[in-house]
Amino acid sequence: MFEKKEKKTGDSKQRLTSLAELGEFGLIERLTKHVKRYHAETLKGIGDDAAVIDAGDKVILLSTDLLVEGIHFDLTYMPFKHLGYKAAVVNISDIAAMNGIPKQMTVSLAVSSRFSAEALDELYAGIVMACDKYKVDLVGGDTSSNVKGLAISVSIVGEAKKEEVVYRNGAGAGDLLCVTGDLGSAYIGLLILEREKSVFQVDPNMQPELTGFDYQIGRQLRPEARTDIRNLLLGTGIKPTSMIDISDGLASEILHLCKQSDVGCKLFEEKIPIDEHTRELAKEYKIIPSVAALSGGEDYELLFTVKQDDYEKIKDVAGITIIGHMTASSEGKYMITPDGKSIPITAQGWDGMRERQ
Amino acid sequence: MFEKKEKKTGDSKQRLTSLAELGEFGLIERLTKHVKRYHAETLKGIGDDAAVIDAGDKVILLSTDLLVEGIHFDLTYMPFKHLGYKAAVVNISDIAAMNGIPKQMTVSLAVSSRFSAEALDELYAGIVMACDKYKVDLVGGDTSSNVKGLAISVSIVGEAKKEEVVYRNGAGAGDLLCVTGDLGSAYIGLLILEREKSVFQVDPNMQPELTGFDYQIGRQLRPEARTDIRNLLLGTGIKPTSMIDISDGLASEILHLCKQSDVGCKLFEEKIPIDEHTRELAKEYKIIPSVAALSGGEDYELLFTVKQDDYEKIKDVAGITIIGHMTASSEGKYMITPDGKSIPITAQGWDGMRERQ
Repeated sequence: MFEKKEKKTGDSKQRLTSLAELGEFGLIERLTKHVKRYHAETLKGIGDDAAVIDAGDKVILLSTDLLVEGIHFDLTYMPFKHLGYKAAVVNISDIAAMNGIPKQMTVSLAVSSRFSAEALDELYAGIVMACDKYKVDLVGGDTSSNVKGLAISVSIVGEAKKEEVVYRNGAGAGDLLCVTGDLGSAYIGLLILEREKSVFQVDPNMQPELTGFDYQIGRQLRPEARTDIRNLLLGTGIKPTSMIDISDGLASEILHLCKQSDVGCKLFEEKIPIDEHTRELAKEYKIIPSVAALSGGEDYELLFTVKQDDYEKIKDVAGITIIGHMTASSEGKYMITPDGKSIPITAQGWDGMRERQ
Repeated sequence: MFEKKEKKTGDSKQRLTSLAELGEFGLIERLTKHVKRYHAETLKGIGDDAAVIDAGDKVILLSTDLLVEGIHFDLTYMPFKHLGYKAAVVNISDIAAMNGIPKQMTVSLAVSSRFSAEALDELYAGIVMACDKYKVDLVGGDTSSNVKGLAISVSIVGEAKKEEVVYRNGAGAGDLLCVTGDLGSAYIGLLILEREKSVFQVDPNMQPELTGFDYQIGRQLRPEARTDIRNLLLGTGIKPTSMIDISDGLASEILHLCKQSDVGCKLFEEKIPIDEHTRELAKEYKIIPSVAALSGGEDYELLFTVKQDDYEKIKDVAGITIIGHMTASSEGKYMITPDGKSIPITAQGWDGMRERQ
């Protein structure tokens, strides 16, 4: 095995593929292409917010997220309690995105010796706080050492009636594209925290200037999962045709729905719901506000489509905004600006849009 | 939040508790003491090999493991394919330990840029190989960057009929203590690999001496999960009263069964099944062979108890060894040596036993 390893990593004649070349989704596609399905109960495997497993009169939803220090969170400004809360919420959000009810959760930690038990008490206090709020049972996990830093792996189980589950692949041309809440604030919150971190690093006696940014910072450090949308939509008699949660940014999530449903879309820039203060702050940072929404991510709102026939039912529901509609796949995926220009939506929307400044 | 963090980690007046002081099980107990249960479907939460969730006519089993480079595996001698296989198997083993059938699995990776796509291809080939062998559907996961090293988080879902599930807490005084296969070889395999690693580090031109140790190295690098035991026991008409898989070593697992079942035990040293060659190798390393079994771990065999009335049914089953029996809790937890001495079983059995050399 020693030799084998040499061959794999040390042979300069063999051209190896860097992970950056592939990107996250390219890598997942490459790695999972040999996966087979053995059980008829596995209704949905890789490729949605959660896996769906048949369990008789209901289905079990299963999702997992791995968060690592330095990549997903920065302990300079992320208090442990918020981190625990957020780690739980991002998983609960995946169940909400399937139109399911979160039920059980496991939490595994790998922690270096630099952390104290008191720090982990705080982390768990945050996890338990989220479990209390969203009525989730913490049922297992493990704790081990880590060479460096902190890694948190959360897995979640939810349930739903079979006919209630909403997948990413059910959108049709003509369906209305809707979003809950408002977008972009979590990203602006991150920019504020990063700015204050650099000030703090230069002069640790400087007190960070965080007052007046409560909403943006709260959205970044302590997001909520939209488990309430399930009942809201049930009340209106609407079942979405497709749904996803907004973790990576509106653009990326729209592309997921389009790809998996094999449709195109028209998104109207001026319809994207953005908090007024966030809009002003974005401008201070010289960012087009819609770009914060399209590329920022971490808002954990829900993006979903409904049949055009449901327009009357959905148009006045508070907290839900119609931001566009799906089209035939051949028509492409575009954002329409207020002055009528069509801009292709790309997952790396950032650079393309910045040119408009 | 900047200030809050200062207080938590920087205040020298506050005495902080190191994780080493608590140990893994002390830490888990401390962190999870505020956990509430909201759902009647959660039949078993923290404290067994898997959580048990009611799903009508059957139960869903849920378990998770987080493996980090430098703590759980060493890529110097662990080929990626074996690592993937083992990461899957240790989770499948948790389902076997509940007497369940493994069904679905998620895999999350955090990888630093030092890894190539080809390395991850190998890792996934190992995961898929285990999924093929054990008929498990790979249904999700995610892949992200890591600052340093590789972390693998696997979660597994299994199922069983409600009456089939075997917990850790069902052993009674008088029950027979049984183990599958043989123990200690995985640990000896690790010692051999570590020895060859140091030789290799001193002189990279030295070829490692691994021939003749296939069994021990195979047990360490490519363990199997005893999913076959479920059918074997069904065939004999026996349902174990308690069960656990041997990941940390026989001593630690016996103590888990005793604690959770509130019983004591008598383990007979000479009954512990150990491969003959492993026994010889242990002596070369100046280790009492039974200590390799008691404290080595990673054999992934199953340890279980059966009613004394089942003695006739179990005594001649190939591949199962009766190694002792449970006693009243007040009688303590002892290993009886061939010359009749009673030695207390401790999870840190290593040091205590070494004195006998």
